[in-house]
This record gives sequence, C-alpha cells and structure tokens, in this order.
Amino acid sequence: DFAQLDAERHARRGYPEAVYCEGKTPAQVAAIAAASGGSGVTLFTRANEQHAEAVLRERPDAFHDADAGLLAWPPEPPAPSGGLVVVVAAGTSDLRVAKEAMLTARYLGRETELVVDVGVAGLHRVIAQLPLLRRARVVVVAAGMDGALPSVVAGLVPAPVVALPTSVGYGAAFGGLAPLLSMLNACAPGVAVVNIDNGYGAGHLAAQIAAPDPS
Amino acid sequence: DFAQLDAERHARRGYPEAVYCEGKTPAQVAAIAAASGGSGVTLFTRANEQHAEAVLRERPDAFHDADAGLLAWPPEPPAPSGGLVVVVAAGTSDLRVAKEAMLTARYLGRETELVVDVGVAGLHRVIAQLPLLRRARVVVVAAGMDGALPSVVAGLVPAPVVALPTSVGYGAAFGGLAPLLSMLNACAPGVAVVNIDNGYGAGHLAAQIAAPDPS
Amino acid sequence: DFAQLDAERHARRGYPEAVYCEGKTPAQVAAIAAASGGSGVTLFTRANEQHAEAVLRERPDAFHDADAGLLAWPPEPPAPSGGLVVVVAAGTSDLRVAKEAMLTARYLGRETELVVDVGVAGLHRVIAQLPLLRRARVVVVAAGMDGALPSVVAGLVPAPVVALPTSVGYGAAFGGLAPLLSMLNACAPGVAVVNIDNGYGAGHLAAQIAAPDPS
Amino acid sequence: DFAQLDAERHARRGYPEAVYCEGKTPAQVAAIAAASGGSGVTLFTRANEQHAEAVLRERPDAFHDADAGLLAWPPEPPAPSGGLVVVVAAGTSDLRVAKEAMLTARYLGRETELVVDVGVAGLHRVIAQLPLLRRARVVVVAAGMDGALPSVVAGLVPAPVVALPTSVGYGAAFGGLAPLLSMLNACAPGVAVVNIDNGYGAGHLAAQIAAPDPS
Amino acid sequence: DFAQLDAERHARRGYPEAVYCEGKTPAQVAAIAAASGGSGVTLFTRANEQHAEAVLRERPDAFHDADAGLLAWPPEPPAPSGGLVVVVAAGTSDLRVAKEAMLTARYLGRETELVVDVGVAGLHRVIAQLPLLRRARVVVVAAGMDGALPSVVAGLVPAPVVALPTSVGYGAAFGGLAPLLSMLNACAPGVAVVNIDNGYGAGHLAAQIAAPDPS
Amino acid sequence: DFAQLDAERHARRGYPEAVYCEGKTPAQVAAIAAASGGSGVTLFTRANEQHAEAVLRERPDAFHDADAGLLAWPPEPPAPSGGLVVVVAAGTSDLRVAKEAMLTARYLGRETELVVDVGVAGLHRVIAQLPLLRRARVVVVAAGMDGALPSVVAGLVPAPVVALPTSVGYGAAFGGLAPLLSMLNACAPGVAVVNIDNGYGAGHLAAQIAAPDPS
Amino acid sequence: DFAQLDAERHARRGYPEAVYCEGKTPAQVAAIAAASGGSGVTLFTRANEQHAEAVLRERPDAFHDADAGLLAWPPEPPAPSGGLVVVVAAGTSDLRVAKEAMLTARYLGRETELVVDVGVAGLHRVIAQLPLLRRARVVVVAAGMDGALPSVVAGLVPAPVVALPTSVGYGAAFGGLAPLLSMLNACAPGVAVVNIDNGYGAGHLAAQIAAPDPS
Amino acid sequence: DFAQLDAERHARRGYPEAVYCEGKTPAQVAAIAAASGGSGVTLFTRANEQHAEAVLRERPDAFHDADAGLLAWPPEPPAPSGGLVVVVAAGTSDLRVAKEAMLTARYLGRETELVVDVGVAGLHRVIAQLPLLRRARVVVVAAGMDGALPSVVAGLVPAPVVALPTSVGYGAAFGGLAPLLSMLNACAPGVAVVNIDNGYGAGHLAAQIAAPDPS
Ligand SMILES: Nc1ncnc2c1ncn2[C@@H]1O[C@H](COP(=O)(O)O)[C@@H](O)[C@H]1O
Ligand SMILES: Nc1ncnc2c1ncn2[C@@H]1O[C@H](COP(=O)(O)O)[C@@H](O)[C@H]1O
Ligand SMILES: Nc1ncnc2c1ncn2[C@@H]1O[C@H](COP(=O)(O)O)[C@@H](O)[C@H]1O
Ligand SMILES: Nc1ncnc2c1ncn2[C@@H]1O[C@H](COP(=O)(O)O)[C@@H](O)[C@H]1O
Ligand SMILES: [Mg+2]
Ligand SMILES: [Mg+2]
Ligand SMILES: [Mg+2]
Ligand SMILES: [Mg+2]
Ligand SMILES: [Mg+2]
Ligand SMILES: [Mg+2]
Ligand SMILES: [Mg+2]
Ligand SMILES: [Mg+2]
Repeated sequence: DFAQLDAERHARRGYPEAVYCEGKTPAQVAAIAAASGGSGVTLFTRANEQHAEAVLRERPDAFHDADAGLLAWPPEPPAPSGGLVVVVAAGTSDLRVAKEAMLTARYLGRETELVVDVGVAGLHRVIAQLPLLRRARVVVVAAGMDGALPSVVAGLVPAPVVALPTSVGYGAAFGGLAPLLSMLNACAPGVAVVNIDNGYGAGHLAAQIAAPDPS
Repeated sequence: DFAQLDAERHARRGYPEAVYCEGKTPAQVAAIAAASGGSGVTLFTRANEQHAEAVLRERPDAFHDADAGLLAWPPEPPAPSGGLVVVVAAGTSDLRVAKEAMLTARYLGRETELVVDVGVAGLHRVIAQLPLLRRARVVVVAAGMDGALPSVVAGLVPAPVVALPTSVGYGAAFGGLAPLLSMLNACAPGVAVVNIDNGYGAGHLAAQIAAPDPS
Repeated sequence: DFAQLDAERHARRGYPEAVYCEGKTPAQVAAIAAASGGSGVTLFTRANEQHAEAVLRERPDAFHDADAGLLAWPPEPPAPSGGLVVVVAAGTSDLRVAKEAMLTARYLGRETELVVDVGVAGLHRVIAQLPLLRRARVVVVAAGMDGALPSVVAGLVPAPVVALPTSVGYGAAFGGLAPLLSMLNACAPGVAVVNIDNGYGAGHLAAQIAAPDPS
Repeated sequence: DFAQLDAERHARRGYPEAVYCEGKTPAQVAAIAAASGGSGVTLFTRANEQHAEAVLRERPDAFHDADAGLLAWPPEPPAPSGGLVVVVAAGTSDLRVAKEAMLTARYLGRETELVVDVGVAGLHRVIAQLPLLRRARVVVVAAGMDGALPSVVAGLVPAPVVALPTSVGYGAAFGGLAPLLSMLNACAPGVAVVNIDNGYGAGHLAAQIAAPDPS
Repeated sequence: DFAQLDAERHARRGYPEAVYCEGKTPAQVAAIAAASGGSGVTLFTRANEQHAEAVLRERPDAFHDADAGLLAWPPEPPAPSGGLVVVVAAGTSDLRVAKEAMLTARYLGRETELVVDVGVAGLHRVIAQLPLLRRARVVVVAAGMDGALPSVVAGLVPAPVVALPTSVGYGAAFGGLAPLLSMLNACAPGVAVVNIDNGYGAGHLAAQIAAPDPS
Repeated sequence: DFAQLDAERHARRGYPEAVYCEGKTPAQVAAIAAASGGSGVTLFTRANEQHAEAVLRERPDAFHDADAGLLAWPPEPPAPSGGLVVVVAAGTSDLRVAKEAMLTARYLGRETELVVDVGVAGLHRVIAQLPLLRRARVVVVAAGMDGALPSVVAGLVPAPVVALPTSVGYGAAFGGLAPLLSMLNACAPGVAVVNIDNGYGAGHLAAQIAAPDPS
Repeated sequence: DFAQLDAERHARRGYPEAVYCEGKTPAQVAAIAAASGGSGVTLFTRANEQHAEAVLRERPDAFHDADAGLLAWPPEPPAPSGGLVVVVAAGTSDLRVAKEAMLTARYLGRETELVVDVGVAGLHRVIAQLPLLRRARVVVVAAGMDGALPSVVAGLVPAPVVALPTSVGYGAAFGGLAPLLSMLNACAPGVAVVNIDNGYGAGHLAAQIAAPDPS
Repeated sequence: DFAQLDAERHARRGYPEAVYCEGKTPAQVAAIAAASGGSGVTLFTRANEQHAEAVLRERPDAFHDADAGLLAWPPEPPAPSGGLVVVVAAGTSDLRVAKEAMLTARYLGRETELVVDVGVAGLHRVIAQLPLLRRARVVVVAAGMDGALPSVVAGLVPAPVVALPTSVGYGAAFGGLAPLLSMLNACAPGVAVVNIDNGYGAGHLAAQIAAPDPS
C-alpha cells in the first residue's frame, strides 16, 4: 500500500526499476527487498547505514558499497556487453558520486573504468588519460566547483560526455549550481547533463548510450 | 585576427566545428564562410537574416532553413549511418528549436524523423507514436512550459532521451528555467539535458549517441 | 497574550481555524488545545512528537497521525457531504504530505480516497486509476522531482487538479522549486498550485472545491 | 504538419482546447481557425493584432477583445450553468489579465462578474464588495506588486480563491515573482495559485470549480 | 585585538553600538561585557544561552529576554521620550522577532506597545487595534509567509510602517524571501523594509523615527 | 469602471493617493486628471511623454518634471512644515530617481535639499556634506551598483536613512538586486529600504518620517 | 550640478576617474569632456554613438574605439611602464569586452597584448600561447558560456589571472551568471573575478597589479 | 588511487598544491600528509579537528591554527619577499576567514599585517589605518553583510584590493550572496573578487600580486 514497483519497466525499457531509499523508512526498504527478485538485478540507491542493514537482513549476500550508498541483489553483475563506460572524477571529493555512476553502469551490464583526481587545475593529468578516454563509448565526468572538466574532455574525444555536477565546493558553488550551469553552457558540444550528485542517473544514461546495437 | 576555427576538431572528435553566428558581425561570418571548406560540412547556427545573406553571398548553393536559423555548406548532408534519431516537439512553438536539432543530426550523418505537437496535455498523441519512438537509437524531446514530456517518453522506451528545454512559455517559466529544472529532475532515468533552446547541442549529442559502432 | 484564535472564522468561512504547530512551543499548543472546543473540529498541523504529546495530554481521545503530523479533536470526522476528493501521491516519499491533504479534506467533511506510487515514469499505473479519477469532484496530486504528474492527470479528467509540490528530490530540485515551477507551467489547464509540502492547504482547498452546492 | 489540435479534449475533459497564439505565425493561427469548428467554441489566447486579423479573416464574426488578447468563435458564449465566477482586479493595470480570466470562464459556460481597483491599500473598497463576493462559487483575484489581496479575500469568504499574479510592478516585483510567492504563502487557506499573467488558466480553473454538479 | 567597539557612535549618532553575538565566542562576548560601560546602555543581540551566561557572569544584574535573545546592561531602560512605537506581530511565531524590535526601541528610549496574532486571514483582529495604531508615531509590523500585513496597516494609518519580514513559513517562503519581496512591493506607500528577522534593526529604526524633535 | 481612486485616503492617512501611470493608457490618465481636485495635490508618477501630454491637456498649468516622470496639480507645493528631507544621489545616473523622491517629499509638504555625485569611491565628497546631512530629519540615499552609500551615511548621522536602490549598473547588478541586498544588510542600523527605483515611495516615506509632530 | 568628478582620485590612487557614459545624456557627457583636462588622460567608457559624437565635438582628436565603446583624451597613451598585461578572449564574441580591458590597461600605462579565440573546446590553441602567457605579469581572461578558460590558464602560469565573465551565451548562461559562478569557483587558485562585461574594471585592476614597483 | 597530488604545480606556477580537507576522510588526509614533502610547504585548508589530528599524527611539528582551519608543514614559513599584504576584517566575525587569507599569504612567502573590526558603520576606524593601507602592495578586505568596505578601501589607496565576501550575516545576506554582489559591483575600480569565505584563494591571489618582480 505504500509502493507499487514498476515491474513492467524491464520489459518496456530493458532496465529494472531501482529503489530510491531516501525518504523511505528502513522497514519499507526491507519489504521491497523481500519482494524483489524476478528478472534482473534490483538496485538500492542512496541507502544510508540503516537502509543497508535492512536490505542485508533480507538479502545477506547483497553487494554493498557504503561510499556510494548502493546495494545490489543478486550480487553478481551481468556479463558486460556493449561499449566501454569510463567514469572520471575531477577531485577526490567527487569520488562517491563517481562510484555510484560506475557501479550503476556495471550492474546494468557495461564494462567500466574509473579515473580519479584529474581536474583542470593540472591539465597534464587528464591529458595522460587520453588513450583510455579515446577507447570509451561514453565518458561520465563528475566535477564540482567550476565544473570545467566536461568541456575540456568533450573537446578531446569523439564519444559523448555525461556531465555529472557535484555539490562539492562552498559559497558561490551554491550546492552544485555553479558546475551545473557550467556544464549546461559547455562550449564544446556533446555534453549531456544530469542532476547534481545524481550518480545513479549518470550511470543509467551511460549504460543506455553504450548499449549493444539492437540490430 | 578575430577568429581561429578549430580546424583539427574533425580529426580529434570526428565532427567539424560549427560557426555560432550570434555576437558575430555579418562581415565576420562571411569571412569564415569564404575560408571554410576542407573536410566535411560547415554549419552556421543561430543565423539571422543578415548572417544568412552574408553566407549565401559567399556560398550561394548553401542549404538554409530560416526557421531553424541554420545554414550548411556544402548543401548535401552525408549519407546516413548509425542509428535513427527521432526528434519530438511538444508544442507547435517548440518547432524551431526541434528543427535545429534535427538538421544538425542530419548534417552530422544520421537518419532523422520529426514528430510535432504531442504534449502531455493529450497523452494519446505521444502514445500513438510509440512504434516510431521504439525504433529510435536516441530520442530528442523539445518542450517548454512544464517540460514534462521527456520524463514520459523516457519511461516508455529503451533509448536514451536528450531533453531540450525551450524558452516557450511565460511568467514562472522564467525563460526556460521551469522546463530545464523539470528535465534535470526527471523521475525516469535516462534523460540527458542540454541548455535552453540549444537545438544545435541536442542534435550534436544525438548524432554522437547514435553514431555507428567504431568496432 | 501570545495567540488570538480566529474564532469567527467558522461563521465567516464555514471552516474552523487550524493550529499551525511549527514555531510554537508545546506549552503554547497545549494551552490552545485546552481552550479549543466550540463549533466544529480543531486541527493541529505540522505537529512533532512533543506537540502531539502536549495535545494528547489535554485531549487524550484526539485523533493522531504521526506520519502526517496531524491531530484532530474531537476525533470523529464529520459525516461526509459534497463530492469525492481523490488524493494521488506520485512516489512513496510523497506519502506523508499526501496523507496530510487527505486527512484535512476528511476532517473538513469530504469523502476521500488515496492512490500511491503512480508516477509518470510508469504511465500504466496512473492510467489504471482512471475510473476512480473520473469519479472525483477534485483531484489532489502530490509530486516532487519533475512535478510532471499533475499535468498528465489534468489532461485526462474533467475535474480541477490541486497540484501539491513536495520537497522530495535533491540537487536541482532545490527543495521543491523544480516541481513548483513545473506545476505553475502545467501545459494542461485546470491546475491549482499550492505551496511546497503544504498538504493542509491542498486538503482545505480541495474540501472547498468539492463542497456541497450551497443553493 | 505543425499542429495536432487535441480534438478529443472535449470528450475527455468537457472543455475544448484553446489555441495559444504566442510563438505561432499569423498564418499558422489562420490555418487553425479555418480548420476549427466541431463541438463547442474555439478560443484564441494571447493574440496580438496580427493574430487577430488572421483569425478575423477566416472567421469575420468571431468575438474579439483586444485588451484581453482573446478571440472566440462562434462568438456567442454558451448559456451559463453552474455557479457564479467573480473576477477581482486589484488595480487598473491588472485589468487586462482579469478580463482574459473572465472571458475564458464565460466562454466555458459560467456566469461572471468583474470588480476593479479594490486593492488592499484602501481596504474599504473590497469590503464594500462583500455581498457580491459571498455569492460567488469561486473568486478569481488578479494582483501584482505585493499580491496581498487574495489572502484578504480568502479570509472573508467561504468560496475558494484562484490567485492570479500579474507582472504589474517593477524592481523587486521581478516580473510577477513577488506576488506569485505571496500568493503561494497566503496565510489564509483556500488559495489556488496559477502562473503569472495566466488569465486563461485562471478562468479555466474557475469554470471547472464552478461547474454544475455532475450528479 | 579581535574587536574595536565603535565608542564614538553615541556621540556621532545619539545611539550606542550593540554587540552582535552570533559568530562571536562566549569568551569574546564576556570580554566586551566586562569592558562595556561609559555612556548609555550596551545591548547584546542574538545571544544564545552560552552568550547569555557569559554576559551574566560579568554583569549579573543585566536584563535578559531569552525569547528575544537580547541582554541589556545596565538593566534599567532610559525614561521614554519622543513618540509611541507600536510593534505588531502577525502570528504567534513572529513573536520572538517582534519582541527583539520592541525591546530595542525601549532601550533606545521610546515608549512601546506590543500587539500579537492579528494577521490578515482574520481582518477584524487588526481593525480592532486601529485606535492604538492611530496613536503611534511609527508602527513596526513583523510578518512571515505572505507578508501582507504591513500593506494593510500602512493603508490605514498616517504613521510610517517599519516592515519586518520573518523566516516563519516553509517551502516557497524561502526563508523569508516571500514576505521580504511582498513588503518591498507594498501597494500602500509609507513602508520601510529591513532585513529578514532583523528585530534589532527594526527597533533601532523605529526609535530614530519616533525620536523627540531636536529643535 | 476602470479605476476607483481612494478618495478617502487623505482623511485616513493625511496624504492623497497618487496616480501610477505605468500600465494605464493616456486616455485613462486623462480621465483621472479631469476628475481630480478636491483636497490636496494630485501626483502623477512614472509618466512617459504621452501620459504627460494627456495630463497637461486637462490641466495645462500642472507642474511637470520630465526627468523624474512626475506631474503635480495644482502646481504649487504646500508650504513646508516638519523637518528637513535631504536627498542624496550617489552618481549622476541616480539623479532621476533621486529627483522623483525629492519632488514627492516637497509636494507632500516638506522642505527638501538635493546632493549629487557623492559616491563612496571618493569619500571626501560625502564627508564635505556632513553639516547639511546632520541638519536633516531624514536622509534619502539613492545608489546603484554596490549600494554602499546608505551604510556610510547612516554611520555618520543621527537621522534615519531611507535607502533607495536604483537599477543603475550592469551584469551582476541584476537590475538593482545588488544594491537592494546591500542596503537590506547595511552594517549600520537605521536604514529603511524601499523598492528598486521607487523614488515615489522613498519620498512619501521621508515625508511621513519628517512630518510635524501631531501633538 | 549633475556631476562632481573625483578630481583628487589621481592624487589619492594614481589613476584618473573614468566617465561612465551609460545613464548620462550626450549633453552631460559633452559638458564633462569640455571640463576635462588637468593631470592625465580622461577615459569615457560604455559610450554609444551619440556619446561618442558628443565627446568628439568637444575633443576632435580624442581616441575612439567603437567596438569597445571607449574614448580617451588626450589620445596618446602614456609611455608603458611596469609589467606586461596579456588579454585573452575565449571566443570571437568576447572580443569587445576584451578590447575594453586591453585599452583601459594601455591608457593607464601598461604594455598590452591581445589573444583571441582560444577557448577550451580546442585546448591546443591556448597551449600554443604558453610562451606569451608565461611572460605576463597578469593575464586577463574574458569568457562567456561555461567560463572555463580562466581555471585552465590559471593552472598553467605563475601570474594572477583576472577573470572577466561576459554575457555571451543564451539560456542557462543567464546573462553571464554561469561564467561568473564558474570563475568564482575556479579550481585553480589565483583567479580574481570582476563584474560581467566589466572590461573597464578588468583593465584597471590589471594595470594596478602590473604597476611598477613603487620602491 | 583516490588522489593524485599535482606535484608539478610548483614548477609550473611557483606555488605548491594545497590539500582541501572538506570532503576527504581523516584517513585520506593522513595518507597525503605522510606522502608530502619535496619542494616547499604543504598547506592543509578547511581542516576540522579530526583532519587536524590526522595531520598532526603524521607531522607532529606541523603549524596549526584552529580558528583558520589551517595546517602547514614544515611549520616554518619561507623568508618573506615581494611586497606587503595587508588583510582587513570588517567585523570580529570575519576574523577566521581573514586569518586563513593572511596565513596563506605568509606561507607562500609574503610579509603580512592584520587589521580587525574597521567596518564602514564607523568610518574613522578604517581612516585611522590609512598609513598602513598605503604601504600595502595589495589589500585583502574580508566583509559580510553589505560588503561595503572593499569599495571604500579601494577608493582610498593605489593598491589593488582583493575582496573576500564572508557568510557573516543572516536573512537577505543569503549566505554571503549580498556582499558578493556588492563587491562585484564595487563603484571604485580595482577590486578583485574571490568566492565566499575563500580565505585560501584570497591569500594565494594576494601572494601572487605582491610577488617579487621576476625581472
Ligand atoms: N539515486 C536516485 N536518484 C534519482 N532517481 C532515482 C534514484 N534511484 C532510483 N531512482 C528512480 O526513482 C524512482 C523510484 O522512486 P520511488 O517510487 O519513490 O521509489 C525509480 O523509478 C528510479 O528510476
Ligand atoms: N494563454 C495561455 N496560457 C497558457 N496555456 C495556454 C494558453 N492558451 C492555451 N493554452 C494551452 O496551451 C496549449 C496549446 O499549446 P500549443 O500546442 O503550442 O498550441 C493548449 O493545450 C492550451 O490548453
Ligand atoms: N541583531 C543584529 N542584526 C544586525 N546587525 C546588528 C545586530 N546587532 C548588532 N548589529 C550591528 O552589528 C555591528 C556589530 O558587528 P561586529 O563588529 O561583528 O560586532 C554593530 O555595529 C551593530 O550596529
Ligand atoms: N564601464 C564601467 N563599468 C563600471 N564602472 C565604471 C565604468 N566606467 C567608469 N566607471 C566607474 O564609475 C564611476 C562613475 O560613475 P558616475 O559618477 O555615475 O559617472 C567612476 O568612479 C568610475 O570609476
Ligand atoms: Mg585534486
Ligand atoms: Mg498543442
Ligand atoms: Mg515509485
Ligand atoms: Mg488603484
Ligand atoms: Mg494566528
Ligand atoms: Mg561620479
Ligand atoms: Mg571559436
Ligand atoms: Mg564591529
């Protein structure tokens, strides 16, 4: 009576519904975990410690990454298909959100790589990653503060860039507004913006972009 | 001395640089048009009547769509490769921006389709397009006002959705802010947001997503 | 000396004043509860645990819904008159606010129904509720994130829709600003917007709209 | 190919679709006018002089109110049914928007009354209208600047109030943002807010609220 | 080395400097209290419990109002001179801020009166106070939410109105932004706006306006 | 039928209603001018050339200041009573708004002085005016850009300061938002803020503050 | 009586006052031009065609750059002293503002260089300028849209960077807000931000930073 | 794997990278502290107590200022070179941020002086500091609330002013937005703005401006 999981989503879209834990009680999350199963993996996102315990009591073998606030059951990700998803974190503080994106893409069936702390203040660091970035079917770039990295990366590679603004920063970063606006105004075309701190959305979108050709 | 076209962009990214006419004088645009050529098409975007005349004086056979404010030279789009790009305009007033997106994707080498006036106020209209939408490798959805259509479309198809907010509306639409925020908060995952009225950016991103598999 | 209840409100408007507990001390709320009585029910809204205890000490038989933060005394709602009020919550996390709306309408004398977790990401869920929605004299739709559901519902039914934005979401949801703007720009006419998380206001407005014809 | 009127709207909702002229060329509007007909009236809203001429060329007997930017064809409003809609304009400058609301409600089948220049700076003016306001099934209140009038009216009458913020004012009125926020925070419950300057939406909502009881 | 009290302020302006406790440590506040004295009263504003204890340890006979977060030493306010300052709180929750204003005016030498819970949702309450309001040399009106009360009061009395927006409210009140904008756009002239929750500033301004004629 | 002048305002408040011309047609303004008369002066504010001509056709001897957009009839201001109103314009561009304030105060019965181009970038200019500023019963300070001048003036004089933000400036001045916020946060107490460019409101408020003592 | 040039500014600060033409009539500007002279150059900024004609009538040999909206009299810049000021424009459309900065620095006595169209979408273009950038005592970087270039430049050179946001862009660029926020949040330290489109301010600041050592 | 310090920054820019502790775990900070060394000092900024303990465990002789949230190792600042950096705090509450700026400049090799509590509400306090301010090669001015002090200081001295807005204030200070906008619109040219509360950035920029002449 408090939730109707969109069970048909997998049939309609090819990807299962995820359970967004914020704003749900641990008991509600546990009930959903107990009822889950059927086709494909169930992801629990933005799970705090209480949510995680509730899920693990029902599904003790679930995968859990506390940094990313993510659980997955069954714990084994599908065998990767489609293209490579490279996830880039501009700074160390963007790592949590970047991992949420990477794990989501992996559990939706893609091969993933993670690159950390390559912000534009020291440009040689991202340039050193060009061979990897050029192999990607899609690049996710998580950045806070000035949000300048997606523009720079998009200018260097043929793949589309999923720009993932983070709330890292203070003052006139206004909780992620500054990098969000930066990314929406990226002077290099080919930048797809998602919500602030929305690692799940970025990973899902990347998985769709890098999906194997249906034909 | 007023412009250095990024001539290497095609080599680096696989797509040519486009000329953004706003803020340039017709004379500047004409000079660029005269110098253009080399590999691939040159696009002139956000061209007003004066800009268009300037380009057409240099390149009389250029393609010109006055609604979309777009010119292309040489006028023949490349033979389409990769997947299908479907562009959807929620209302009649979103048509200009939607056409800019569609033409950009076409000139970057994709097959395109356009669907008009299928906003969520009359849901049967978009549902009637489901067979076409399900054939798309990527769907671009242009909408102003409440910006609700991308969420609805994303919930119905496996392809990623490029959400293109428009400045259509008034009052608390705040020049496109309302649909922009809507789209960033889409409750269906798989929505890639671009800047308000940025038809060029949406079309470019869609062309990259639907690009033929490099492997 | 700290409060003058608007005792004449029932005579003037047909509905009693409610006590807004936020910003009042439990002692102040208790004093008001002790003084209440007279014509009709007294509602206590946005009551936290301390407020609730204070009211229940004075009025042990009061109705209390902790989720909705609402108390009512006397506990028995009036016999329903007028039309049906249907309250819809887009997601599980919108449930608290939706219940505050539903209970308010019920204590102001209307028949009510509640529908949960029928967001636009899975459209079939709301379409399945059309028979109920078409019976309503007014529909209250609570939604956070993209706030798209009121537009969709308003496009499907003859009744007016009270759109109740919630602070569910994060990042560019900006505490409910995104759904608020969406709803103000609903592309389907017939949408009445209230303040973010204002379940009480939505329920009161719905009760007035569905009031029995005075003639 | 540029518009699909939502012809089923009347069947689904009981009210016809209106043609929003802003962002449409006069030629597009003329084509829609020529194709209109069928069940009920067609409204053309936010029509400038060119739009009006285009409609009147196709439908010379159409009703036209230039102040309100509204046309209707056929010109005769339906016989009024349901309750009374009272439209109140706080100041003279709010009159255009108030008339758009009043005419919309009238063409959707309601009896209407208009009251002008009764802002809260001179309270006796609105108090003098209480007998009329108390006869209303719904009151529409258009106000710019501080947007205080809907709160005052809602505190005085049993009917719900549709609050219609206008862009009248300057400086920190921010194009209607100040009265919009005021109205969303009305300290009297029973206030339904619509978009800034959205006379059409206010009139439509009022017509639905005052609709005759279906039972 | 951390503070230079503006000791000359009394000579220059006729009013002493006040100590703004927020952002100071209790130790800093205590040091200032110990050093205070000289001409006139020292006010400590926005003092939390720790600040208050620190002041009272140095000046055990200081006046302290915990609700208003205000201390004064020496505790005896000056004999009142000049005109009457009437402070009005729209709702019970505005009381703290209203008391800060009233106490500040009193310690700067004015006669004061306080009126509570007379918001515009029940207009008869403020109208009942007209005889008192008409005796005032200046009226301070504290209100949150729609901030409508200052407009109404200013329309009824010859005295200037100091409008004091409070952060009372939620959602689209945006921490007091809604009443602030309302008050800046008051449709009755004669409204002087101060910062949100700035009871000290409102009381100081009122004391200056009601000051005895220097001539 | 388009306006009800608040004729009782003079009796209630001691000051006549003014006619705000923006948003009124010249014909409407002319009709009001023709009907004016009775007790005291009628002010026409924010009058453009067309409005002015309309008034002057009805009242050829009316006073007219085109810079300030203000007309007054009868043209003779009342004999000054009460205290001195000093109006200060920070820069040359603030002069129009400052004159609107000064003329309003003069027509409401006060003695006035005007000081121009004394912004804080050259502090000696305002310091040179201290003797005049210290004679004022109230000082109006008009400033755009950083809006710093009211803080500085308020710190130097015993009189209250009416801070009048102007839309002078560009970029992050955001149409007057920057000086408005500055003034609301003035670090010197005793600053009364009015709406951006609201010279009329500033002058009215100043006239009330400097009014002769009723006793 | 409408202006008091801050004649002592040169003595106090070492730089003359500039005349900001916006908001002044051509007649006022002409009067100032006629009165100018004395120590050092007089700059007229943000001059439109009418302003320019007015100045040139008084001072026919004045220097005039119509693009930059700047005039200077006497026309000869001082002999350069201090360090090199390099001004960088990210795109062609940023050129006007960049030239205003460069000319201001030159007329305040510095050697200047200008580099155009080296935005981050094609990183090799700015990297090619590193030898010049490394010779600068200060670099001014003008950029609109994502405002990413100052972060990149600051990360590459020892000199401080003056970041000059421009209103180039549309939609969510919000008139320069996006690059302004980017620059305030630059992830490389050493970035000094000025107002949107404030070429004059950027040039003045750069001239001060690159001033010859006083010792 | 969570951080790549930009070790080449010293070579490239002449200043070492600093470790921004917010958003890093104490363990991460400790690991960086253990790895630090090499050329020059390592600064740890925005360090809370846990971060500080972690650093001090690795580097027990590190310098630590708890107010400023700053650690430095090795603890000895370099011998000062270049010009004098004067840091000014408008109020006592701005002291923390001002100290972060001063310490950063000192550890990057400059001579520094600190001046406290000289806000514009008592102008004589800042004027008393003119001899010191005139000796500065650059002045950093930290201020919250109205942010007026940088304009005043910039108008008095030849040196450039680094304006450092703080989040001191409440209500319409909006977390530092008010002083930020003030400073961006400073009516005296020569003001370089940094992010709200960004003492580190202000100090770094000041150190670069006051750097010894390379030639
Ligand atoms: N971390 C997340 N951020 C944004 N959306 C999410 C997240 N996790 C799940 N979702 C979406 O939110 C919806 C679940 O919302 P609810 O019905 O409240 O559980 C699902 O349709 C998901 O696709
Ligand atoms: N003045 C108006 N303001 C807001 N919405 C309107 C207005 N007039 C018509 N509409 C709605 O806008 C939709 C038409 O948009 P479009 O498809 O662009 O013509 C219709 O569904 C109407 O319900
Ligand atoms: N509650 C308050 N709100 C705003 N300003 C205040 C308040 N209390 C004192 N002030 C002013 O703040 C200044 C003190 O700031 P500080 O130097 O940080 O102690 C004084 O000049 C007072 O006039
Ligand atoms: N383009 C400009 N942008 C910002 N400020 C300017 C500009 N040009 C001149 N100013 C400053 O504006 C002040 C002149 O303002 P005003 O007194 O209105 O002429 C001078 O002190 C200049 O330092
Ligand atoms: Mg790093
Ligand atoms: Mg349509
Ligand atoms: Mg759900
Ligand atoms: Mg009126
Ligand atoms: Mg009350
Ligand atoms: Mg000046
Ligand atoms: Mg370019
Ligand atoms: Mg102080």
